[in-house]
Amino acid sequence: MTEFGLIDSIARMCETLPANGWEGIGDDCAVLPLGDEALVVSADMLAEGVHFLRHAAAAREIGRKSLAVNLSVVAAMGARPGATVLSLSLPQDAMDGWIEEFMAGYTELSAEHGVALVGGDTTASAAGITVNVTVFGRTPLANIKRRSAAVAGDIVAVAGRLGASGAGLRDILNGECDTPAAHAHMNPEAQIDEGIWLGGRAEVHAMMDVSDGVASDIRHIMERSGVGADIELEKVPADADLRTALCAGEDYKLLLTVAADGFAAVAAGFETRFGRPLYPIGSTTADAGVLRWLRDGRPTAEEFRGFVHY
Amino acid sequence: MTEFGLIDSIARMCETLPANGWEGIGDDCAVLPLGDEALVVSADMLAEGVHFLRHAAAAREIGRKSLAVNLSVVAAMGARPGATVLSLSLPQDAMDGWIEEFMAGYTELSAEHGVALVGGDTTASAAGITVNVTVFGRTPLANIKRRSAAVAGDIVAVAGRLGASGAGLRDILNGECDTPAAHAHMNPEAQIDEGIWLGGRAEVHAMMDVSDGVASDIRHIMERSGVGADIELEKVPADADLRTALCAGEDYKLLLTVAADGFAAVAAGFETRFGRPLYPIGSTTADAGVLRWLRDGRPTAEEFRGFVHY
Repeated sequence: MTEFGLIDSIARMCETLPANGWEGIGDDCAVLPLGDEALVVSADMLAEGVHFLRHAAAAREIGRKSLAVNLSVVAAMGARPGATVLSLSLPQDAMDGWIEEFMAGYTELSAEHGVALVGGDTTASAAGITVNVTVFGRTPLANIKRRSAAVAGDIVAVAGRLGASGAGLRDILNGECDTPAAHAHMNPEAQIDEGIWLGGRAEVHAMMDVSDGVASDIRHIMERSGVGADIELEKVPADADLRTALCAGEDYKLLLTVAADGFAAVAAGFETRFGRPLYPIGSTTADAGVLRWLRDGRPTAEEFRGFVHY
Repeated sequence: MTEFGLIDSIARMCETLPANGWEGIGDDCAVLPLGDEALVVSADMLAEGVHFLRHAAAAREIGRKSLAVNLSVVAAMGARPGATVLSLSLPQDAMDGWIEEFMAGYTELSAEHGVALVGGDTTASAAGITVNVTVFGRTPLANIKRRSAAVAGDIVAVAGRLGASGAGLRDILNGECDTPAAHAHMNPEAQIDEGIWLGGRAEVHAMMDVSDGVASDIRHIMERSGVGADIELEKVPADADLRTALCAGEDYKLLLTVAADGFAAVAAGFETRFGRPLYPIGSTTADAGVLRWLRDGRPTAEEFRGFVHY
């Protein structure tokens, strides 16, 4: 079974259970409406040897990154992250030194974003470190941005440049851990203020963060919204080769769709607020499930696929 | 560093962060007050080779147990469990067969208690299965039972018999996986209805669930409440030898303190509602931090200590 096969199978099992007021699996976060407000929740698990190598990354950076990727999904719902719960499975040789540095990085980034740490669990591990972060955010219910809210004819946009993280991973695997790209890979900056701001704009329809690459993640919006997408390759803001920018993932930039007649106003407001552009990279179409890569407005035979976990 | 040393160190770090409205580390669950209501949250991580052995336990039982221990901590706050988020780190050889059975057990127990599954994460693992469950419960804020609420002179009680789980673990380690005690170890029953009912009784002061053994867990109530405790050994409702009943843990029965002048009414109501007794096993004292084991009302030299994770 593949990871996506497993997720589908779990999602089908969930449908047999009561919802108890929650909007569950299928978006960046689960959503619990509480009157006019909403609580959003997500979890992310990192495993040594899969998401990080102990010898290749400083524990402090892993601590920061473990939190950053979780703050990112809350912002991608248009919500403000408020608290996390942290679970750690630790082999004996991580109990001195490694864990102090990890916690220093985690606490440091929590403080930078004013996020509480409200609980968790620690346990011994027979093999390797595993980290699980559960994150909580709150926002007015009307500001919640779902993957399912794109409509045909929307502008597809990204809120930052792509590819540095993928190029950095390649550097690290080549033993070059001190390059700017390697630094970007180990220190992703969640677009928290951007997500909250975009959450307040009604012109923004669907939103998510780019964890597996636009080539993979745009398909989640397409599937959940029942639309297709045309991506214009020359518009992709790439800080690496185009394939790395679209496929490598872990850039944690926001990917969104915006009503076509509202895009200019949102983009202008975004640039005024953040001093950086919102990048239009294509549009959604009525051809449900059809993803086309365009050059000079015409489909190319090039194919891009995002990161697959298994 | 020991696990408790690590937890203390993390708790100190947390104090430097904003609370954002949450009551955080120090109880079975974190509590987020929402008007007259409260949301409670807890997380529990299980690691292969530490919490379970793949060859010794059916995946379906591990799925049920992963959930049961989380439902138990919500009930121990006096709250009703409503939803969980599940993270799984899975080696390739668990992707066929094992994970389906695990999910069947998890879903089965979710359905039995009407609990939603609203999100999660799945990832590859380089070594061993790790499971993290985050659980959510809701209750009127006034019903929340904290470890810190015991006062000197309370009756200390347990809401069920102790020791079967510890005896069962011994059976399993001896290769006898089919005994009633082994079954009790692998299929703990969270006292959910009991916890919710006790949450509604103002005479109940402090409450928690027994995961590490009364000998260890009573110390958490003592520390958080600034009291001591006298435990009368002949009153402990033991389904195994006394040492196993007090020290082995994983019985997931509720441990609580009750105002002395209200105990008779609570115990009578409990027995009427559940057809089983509430067992008084001692009392809290004003000697903060002093735990005494009594026989015939007099201190003994016997010493009991609960499960230590590291």
